[in-house]
Amino acid sequence: MNFLEKYNRAVRENNSLLCVGLDSDLSRLPECLKKEKNPILTFNREIIEATKDLVCAYKPNAAFYESAGKAGFEAWEALSGMVGPIPLIADVKRGDIGNTASHYARALFEANSFDAATINPLMGQDTIEPFLAFEGVYLFLLGLTSNDSARDFEYTGGLYKKIARKTVCWNEKFGHRLGLVVGATKPGELKRIRKIASKEVFLIPGIGTQGGDLRRTIAAGYSGKEGNMVINVSRSILFAGKGSDFAEKARREAMQYRDMINKAREEI
Amino acid sequence: MNFLEKYNRAVRENNSLLCVGLDSDLSRLPECLKKEKNPILTFNREIIEATKDLVCAYKPNAAFYESAGKAGFEAWEALSGMVGPIPLIADVKRGDIGNTASHYARALFEANSFDAATINPLMGQDTIEPFLAFEGVYLFLLGLTSNDSARDFEYTGGLYKKIARKTVCWNEKFGHRLGLVVGATKPGELKRIRKIASKEVFLIPGIGTQGGDLRRTIAAGYSGKEGNMVINVSRSILFAGKGSDFAEKARREAMQYRDMINKAREEI
Repeated sequence: MNFLEKYNRAVRENNSLLCVGLDSDLSRLPECLKKEKNPILTFNREIIEATKDLVCAYKPNAAFYESAGKAGFEAWEALSGMVGPIPLIADVKRGDIGNTASHYARALFEANSFDAATINPLMGQDTIEPFLAFEGVYLFLLGLTSNDSARDFEYTGGLYKKIARKTVCWNEKFGHRLGLVVGATKPGELKRIRKIASKEVFLIPGIGTQGGDLRRTIAAGYSGKEGNMVINVSRSILFAGKGSDFAEKARREAMQYRDMINKAREEI
Repeated sequence: MNFLEKYNRAVRENNSLLCVGLDSDLSRLPECLKKEKNPILTFNREIIEATKDLVCAYKPNAAFYESAGKAGFEAWEALSGMVGPIPLIADVKRGDIGNTASHYARALFEANSFDAATINPLMGQDTIEPFLAFEGVYLFLLGLTSNDSARDFEYTGGLYKKIARKTVCWNEKFGHRLGLVVGATKPGELKRIRKIASKEVFLIPGIGTQGGDLRRTIAAGYSGKEGNMVINVSRSILFAGKGSDFAEKARREAMQYRDMINKAREEI
């Protein structure tokens, strides 16, 4: 089953647009897991077990796995065996010339079994195509990011709007395999991007710790009943509890986010 | 010793601006290595042994290690123990929000011992700063890349020139820790970027398989006797031979590139 099918099914069955960001920072894991053979792997398993009926996707960010050496590598490799029918988005923000990009793609979709990935589009079309060679996978191109310094380059010559327009063009060419990452911290721009890319799936970071406004985000980017948004929350859910009840607390937090998102969907 | 010191010493001692790109694609390694416990690791060791007096740096690209699973991970981890005094540039093109970037930085400079890294600057200053928290490391920001599709976004609103100008600003602020990646396939633009960034070290891909013109590149970007260019060649050197004499053939090819570069330096 391809990413979009898995995603749409999870949206429907779990009645959720919430994505849990598995940014499983080794240094922040609950004390009670420190003795585990691989604390990251155990943490992920418990978080997934506690939230799998509340989400439309999981999104691990590679940085937190790369910084943890061998334990991180093993936990990263184990992810796709843990999530069952929920789609798994590799947040890697890769982007490189064709020959190299095809190796990044193989790492994600051949050596591993991710359903989707985030891609940095700066280097253009020939750096994106090698990922599309893998059937059924979906790519989220960085459209407009949630951080303050997005202003340094992403607005230059209307760059973020150009990326959105190109994404729409490429989708016509490549059969609707591309979405956009758009930060929740900039709802005005999110609205403009939605006008350009009306059917694309948006991956939305910036809710939770980063302070994005959920209701304004939904109002700006959600376009009806179709599942066209993946709203990511990482730290606020993962680290809601520090004790042995961390998974239960994560579940409670995830449920609150899911419900807040659904309430905001109903209100628009 | 920081990156710039190591780099300048290697330039002087080896009389070389050549960087060998350790893009050690498992599927292209010589047949005779296939029985090794870790063919990538053995290949790297032999290539380094055969070229270490001919280069100013080594630049492994992470994609070729990530696509090779566990063997790739182990070979990547082993690199910094193999290169001796030659500086090692991690070609990773990472870029992410601050908290995540600091984990990418830890993966490279704490869990591992790279001297420098390539960074995708799209997301701006706050995604670059966490890397600079590691003393002595040097970062090459993507300025203008060597691929055809660089035209999709890198020229938008003069973006590549803006990146060069920002790099110069940041260098004044952060103490000259940033260089630029500029493809050899665009010597006209390289000249314009050199006018903006006169003192920055340029990492130049695109010579060799990609077809960039060495003499025009040197004429456009080399500014005198200082070592201000790292000219990368990957595939043409690594895979010069397919038999058991692969290291010897790589050495011969590397020597030719080093000498061609030096001839072009003398001619300007």
